[in-house]
This record gives sequence, structure tokens and C-alpha cells, in this order.
Amino acid sequence: MTERYSLSQYCQNKIILIDDALSQYTPVDAYPPEIYDAMRYSLFAGGKRLRPIMLMAAADAVGGCGSNYLPVACGLEMIHTYSLIHDDLPAMDNDDYRRGKLTNHKIYGDGMAILAGDGLLTAAFSTMLSQPNVDSAILVNVVREIAAAAGASGMVGGQAVDLASEGQTIDAKTLEFMHQAKTGALFKAALRAGALLANASKHEIEALTNYANQFGLAFQITDDILDVVGTQDKIGKPVGSDMRNQKVTYVTLYSLDGAKQLAQKAVDNALASLIGFGSEAEILRDLVEYLITREA
Amino acid sequence: MTERYSLSQYCQNKIILIDDALSQYTPVDAYPPEIYDAMRYSLFAGGKRLRPIMLMAAADAVGGCGSNYLPVACGLEMIHTYSLIHDDLPAMDNDDYRRGKLTNHKIYGDGMAILAGDGLLTAAFSTMLSQPNVDSAILVNVVREIAAAAGASGMVGGQAVDLASEGQTIDAKTLEFMHQAKTGALFKAALRAGALLANASKHEIEALTNYANQFGLAFQITDDILDVVGTQDKIGKPVGSDMRNQKVTYVTLYSLDGAKQLAQKAVDNALASLIGFGSEAEILRDLVEYLITREA
Repeated sequence: MTERYSLSQYCQNKIILIDDALSQYTPVDAYPPEIYDAMRYSLFAGGKRLRPIMLMAAADAVGGCGSNYLPVACGLEMIHTYSLIHDDLPAMDNDDYRRGKLTNHKIYGDGMAILAGDGLLTAAFSTMLSQPNVDSAILVNVVREIAAAAGASGMVGGQAVDLASEGQTIDAKTLEFMHQAKTGALFKAALRAGALLANASKHEIEALTNYANQFGLAFQITDDILDVVGTQDKIGKPVGSDMRNQKVTYVTLYSLDGAKQLAQKAVDNALASLIGFGSEAEILRDLVEYLITREA
Repeated sequence: MTERYSLSQYCQNKIILIDDALSQYTPVDAYPPEIYDAMRYSLFAGGKRLRPIMLMAAADAVGGCGSNYLPVACGLEMIHTYSLIHDDLPAMDNDDYRRGKLTNHKIYGDGMAILAGDGLLTAAFSTMLSQPNVDSAILVNVVREIAAAAGASGMVGGQAVDLASEGQTIDAKTLEFMHQAKTGALFKAALRAGALLANASKHEIEALTNYANQFGLAFQITDDILDVVGTQDKIGKPVGSDMRNQKVTYVTLYSLDGAKQLAQKAVDNALASLIGFGSEAEILRDLVEYLITREA
């Protein structure tokens, strides 16, 4: 399909820019090597760069140029990477593999993995705040919003609820908060950041916010489905780990078929929120369609 | 002494403002309680609020009003607190007590303590970036500098070198980097932030930077001395833990007397850098004098 090819081309082009920028922000000769080596290990462990790509695609969708915002975009990838390192620790999910590679603490030890996460989270903010050619007041708002999305009322809060609820029964409302906070909040911040940085109109920002909410929901449901029907080879971690850890997921709550229907509905809602946009939002449309067919 | 009294009064007044602001930034009814409870436990575990006080004292020293910068000042305290929580973890220093109280992970478990640290570090940035009545371009510079000081080339990097060098011999130069990065970098950022926020002159900023470098050095040497000659009752953690962990310190490198001389020299240098300032810098003078006589 032409669309699929064009999404793949778009992502490949952006990934080259993102990887190059991330290398510049964490150079191989940076001191002290103990910490930068551990940070780089996870930063270049095969991430799909979804969050920075979404920021850029949102900027492109409102007529801006996404590639102008690499510092903020890469900050999102650093935040995402830190959260994976801390998540995988024995004190949290205790995963030995991630994307088919040994997790950070299996290579560097728990203490250095904690520090590598801390280093990436902090580097995210120094990097984002080095974004040039953007009005400082807008940059302050964007980075503050990203911090809120990543923090105790967002991603970190979602992880805390997840950790506290392992082996316990939680209701659908708590599950929804947990996933919205764990994954959806940062997706939303990424899309809104792209729109805000590119001076989107109030109407465009509203539409992209709706898109982001549905995108995050579809992403999490698909994650839960893949934990059941995926293969270790493709998702890069043991299948069924949610079930082993007695986690409540969309699949355990709604059955596999119910979860698939919910995911499709979220995708349809995401597409509907882009109705006012023209071809410049094609990448965002392709992204959310890709979501539901992904295998990892 | 009048000076000691006035320093103590100054600190008591500022601590009331800081504690009140910190309570507002992490309200008791914030959701989800799992994470906010753990964050507040360490945030209100008896910290001396030295870093926010230093920011305010620096602003006051250049003719500004330190109390206007509570969001940035409190962000520094959040960063400091997160670093203590992660430091105390079994995977790091493995300390059960801090300031005479059980450490965060002894109460909430290792996983939640990691998240509480992550939550505080992230809250630091959303809080700092909510600072009102400051030119956005200045705020961006100040927060970026604080992030750099707290990150992989600063505090986190110092911790990484510390962790990697346990049980190993390191030279005086590495020791100096480690301590400058672990403690000095954030002190320096605090003092420079106060000066920059209050629109200090280039000359004033330079003088306060020199003061900060010497202050950080004196602080760390005194810490090493207290680990040997302090009492658990006063410093709130087991005495001699550095020696048990086979850490290289200023005392092991220069002997107790040598370390005391180095600390005094750093205090003298700090005072000398304030020569151009009048009575408005008296608190900064008192602070560094207090350092060398402190018992905890």
C-alpha cells in the first residue's frame, strides 16, 4: 500500500534525524563514562522512537516543520527510555529482556541502572530547554506540560498504581486511569507539544488532543492483547508476563474479543478527530491505523 | 552571637515559606495517593532546606527578593530529596536511616521508593517552570542550568563514579570531580539561579559562582569529617558508614587534620569572594562559617 510505504518512509527519515540528535546529546566521549555508557545502552537498544515521531508528525500536521523541534522530541524519547529502565528493575517488573536485549540492570547492575534512568530523565529537561528558535514563553509551557505528563499525576503515578495493585483486583475505572497515566499522558504531551511549538490554532490543538487520548487508549489495549497473542520473538520479552504477574489488563477485564473491539473503536474515534485536517495529517492517520495491526 | 542568631532567624523564616510552598506543590489530597504519600514522606523528613535557602540568600545578596522565587527554590529541594531516596536504596548505599528516620524504601518498599524519587525529580521541573514574574528566557536558562547540574555530568555522574569506585582506590582528582559533581554542582546552580533570577550583574554572578565552588568543597569535606567524628544521634545515620563501604574520602586521603585544614581554606576562599558585597551578603557569609562548625 502507498500509505503504509509512506508512513514507513516518514518514520525512517525521522529516525535518522532522531538517532543523530540523541548521539549528539549523549556523546561517546562524555564524562563520566560510567553513567553515559549505561544511558546510551538503553537509548540505542532499538526503540521505535514513536513519541518523538508523534511530536514531529503533529507539528507537520498543523503546517509546521517537525524536524525543527529535535531537542524537545528527543527529550520525550529520553523520558520514555528512563521509564523502561526503571520499570524493568527487580524491584518493579523484574524483566531480564526488553526488545530482545538484556535489560539495563542485567548489564550494569541495579544501582547503575537506577542512575542511568535518573540521568536520562534529567538530560531530557536540559535537552528540551536547549530548543532554539522557539518563543521562550511557549517553550516553558510545553516543557512544563511534558513534566506534568511524565510525573506523579501522570506516568509515574500510573506506574505507582500498577505497582500497588499487582495481585489485587482493580476496577475498570482505576485500570483506565492507570493506563491513561502510564502511556497516554506522554503520547498526549508529545502531540500537543508538536502542535504548540508549531503555533497551531486553538481548534487544531483541541482536535489533536482528542486524537491523542484515543491513540493512547488504542495503544494500551493493543499492548495488553499482544501480551496474550504475541510471540516473544516479536515483542522481545516473555509473552504472558502480565498474567504471571497477576495484572489486571483490558484482556482480563473484557476478554480478547472485547478488547479488540475496544481498540478498533478507539482507532475510529482517533481518525474522526482528524476530519478537519487535510493530507498534511496523513501520517497521523496512518500511525493510528498501524497501531492496531502491529505485532510488537 | 548576633550573626548566628540572625542566620538562624533568616533560615527559620525561609523554612516556613518553603515548607508551605512544598505542601502546596504536593497536596495531601493529590491523586494517586500511593505515590504522593511516598514523595511527601521524604520531602517532610526534616531536611534543612539548605539549597532553597541558598537560592534565596543569593537573590537577597544582589538586592533582589529571594522569597519571590519559591517555585524554583522548592524545585531544588525536590531534586535534593529525590537524590537522597535513590542513594539510600539497597542497590546503592543501602542505608536504613536518614536524619534519624527510616529511609523511604524501608517504609514503602524499593519499587515505590524508586518511583517516589522519579516523581520528585519530575515534579521539580514542572514546579520550577511554573515560576511566575520572571522573564521566560531567563527562566529557561536557569532551569536548564539546574538540570545540567543535577544530571549525568553533575550530581548523577558523581553518584555513578561513587558507585563504580566503591572498594577501589581512586586518586585525588577523581575524588574532587566526584564531590564537586555530587554536591557542589547543585549548590552552585542554587546560588547562580538566585543571582540570575534577581537580575544580578555579570560581576556579581562571577563572585557568587566562586563562592559556590568553595562552599561546595567545604561542605563535602565537612561531611567526610562528620562521618568519622560525628555521632549517630546528630547526623541521623550510622557513623563510619563510609569506612565500612570502603569509600575514599577527604579524611582517608588527607587524614583528619589535613581535611580540617582544607575545609578552613575553602571557607576563607568563599568569604574572600564576597569582599565586594555589603551587608546584604551577610547571610551568605554566616552560612559558610556555620558549615565548618556544624555537627550534622
